[in-house]
Amino acid sequence: MIQTDPELFIQGILDGNRRIIAKTITLIESSLKEHQRNAFTVMDKILPHTGKSIRLGITGVPGVGKSTFIENLGVSLAQKGHKVAVLAVDPTSQRSGGSILGDKTRMEKLSAHENAFIRPSPAGETLGGVAAKTREIMLICEAAGFDVILVETVGVGQSETSVAAMVDFFLVLMIAGAGDELQGIKKGILELADGIAINKADGDNLKAVEKAKGDLEIAMHLICPESPTWSTPVMTCSSVIDGGTNNIWEMVLDHNKKFKASGEFKQRRKKQSLEWMWTLVEEGLKQRFKHNEKINKEIPKISQEVKNDKISPSAAAEVLLSYL
Amino acid sequence: MIQTDPELFIQGILDGNRRIIAKTITLIESSLKEHQRNAFTVMDKILPHTGKSIRLGITGVPGVGKSTFIENLGVSLAQKGHKVAVLAVDPTSQRSGGSILGDKTRMEKLSAHENAFIRPSPAGETLGGVAAKTREIMLICEAAGFDVILVETVGVGQSETSVAAMVDFFLVLMIAGAGDELQGIKKGILELADGIAINKADGDNLKAVEKAKGDLEIAMHLICPESPTWSTPVMTCSSVIDGGTNNIWEMVLDHNKKFKASGEFKQRRKKQSLEWMWTLVEEGLKQRFKHNEKINKEIPKISQEVKNDKISPSAAAEVLLSYL
Repeated sequence: MIQTDPELFIQGILDGNRRIIAKTITLIESSLKEHQRNAFTVMDKILPHTGKSIRLGITGVPGVGKSTFIENLGVSLAQKGHKVAVLAVDPTSQRSGGSILGDKTRMEKLSAHENAFIRPSPAGETLGGVAAKTREIMLICEAAGFDVILVETVGVGQSETSVAAMVDFFLVLMIAGAGDELQGIKKGILELADGIAINKADGDNLKAVEKAKGDLEIAMHLICPESPTWSTPVMTCSSVIDGGTNNIWEMVLDHNKKFKASGEFKQRRKKQSLEWMWTLVEEGLKQRFKHNEKINKEIPKISQEVKNDKISPSAAAEVLLSYL
Repeated sequence: MIQTDPELFIQGILDGNRRIIAKTITLIESSLKEHQRNAFTVMDKILPHTGKSIRLGITGVPGVGKSTFIENLGVSLAQKGHKVAVLAVDPTSQRSGGSILGDKTRMEKLSAHENAFIRPSPAGETLGGVAAKTREIMLICEAAGFDVILVETVGVGQSETSVAAMVDFFLVLMIAGAGDELQGIKKGILELADGIAINKADGDNLKAVEKAKGDLEIAMHLICPESPTWSTPVMTCSSVIDGGTNNIWEMVLDHNKKFKASGEFKQRRKKQSLEWMWTLVEEGLKQRFKHNEKINKEIPKISQEVKNDKISPSAAAEVLLSYL
């Protein structure tokens, strides 16, 4: 049975009690109405204690060495005394029955560190739901004193957009290919990046990495107009070289310092909160729509008619909305 | 008074009667319930006669020479016997009281040509509304026998996304700067492009254009993974050279031919129709939400509270949805 007195949870979280943190997360992930109500109360009460971490989002397709990068960066930060939480947004974790972070052996050294907290992706019906829970878990970790939150995304669907919308810095990991081309870019992702890191910059790979870096710098210059405060840097890093991720963390700190000085840090967070509210409203509206039995039954049929030009998209939308 | 017998409209449109076409568009743009019902009937009846044009979307920020480009391309096509309709999506046209295409003298030669039809952007409360009307006007033009539809966007808000979602080919116009850098790129736009044209490739400008072309080719190579059917070409063009836009039209025809052969042409249109239905459904849901009096009154207050961390985004969304 899950404890249900919100006060116990709140105090436990503020004390950094890991058992209570885990229980609160279970509440948040629960689909029981009563648990959700309690989670709600807890979230409301801890809100004033949140916001004091650096939120770093990390994306990269499988093969770019994301886990090792996160482990190395995390261990290095934990050793310096930072309290590091690693969360994940993976909308497929339910379907596969597991999660990209379910297997903690993936980050063996980090998960064994007393300053670290690793949490697999919450399951959920929709990306919005998964991201919503991750966002709340992030706030819980902040209230519990974690000062660095690493949010990983596997890059399924629009998950990068969701993660970029909840972090202070969005890092895109890539690698150079066998030739000089870049691997691991998904459409639309570069434009979300606050920084890019070309990983595996070591050994025989160095020449290809340098060429890829040059190309990418040209591309970023074209895609992202220079801002007085920040233009997206293209860095290189390595997980087999000692301290090979330090420059990436320095970049994050530099961005943090500049954005705090310019006021953009606070502004970005306020904007994110507001956008988050609207995302949830839209999600809620869509859920109500799709859970309407008549509409749900009609969707496949009318979709087919639209595809075959039997009915115009506007007429079809009108029909579906009329059932509400 | 507007004629209201739908049969008259339908026959008039199919006959290519410009007076009737204009009247139908007025019906579509009207906010009167009765007009909308009639427009609906007309749209439904002409649906089988639509779809036979090449739909070309054109974007570019002010200064890249978009109007002159469209005029030259349009006149050249009209002279070859094509029937060319020029439409615009400009969600600001209502606010400014005019429209980017309101002043037909902007395209003097084209608007005087008997094969051309130029229509300013419809007004509307939302981008979704403006785009919806433009899409319907496009269908009317097709039913009336226009075989090339040029849809212009001024690039406000997400208007490029709306236009890209209704055309067969989305063209991005740019120019080279005084140095060798590129001007006129908006974030996220390059990834929508089926083709890019660097305009004003003439005279002293040629060297800068060539350099910009090379850089852009590298960037596009990184952003857009090669497809077996199509990789976004970077072309150059000029409106002061005779036939300086011919190569652009050839690119569009080449794309059209290849996409028709591979089946992607039909697939893209089907996908667009279905996405369009969902866009309209979401738009409809949002409108109902925002037109709810209690919600409408609450939004500014609760937005402020979210921004100032007085309430969490999830709690705020919950509150707003509870009023429905």
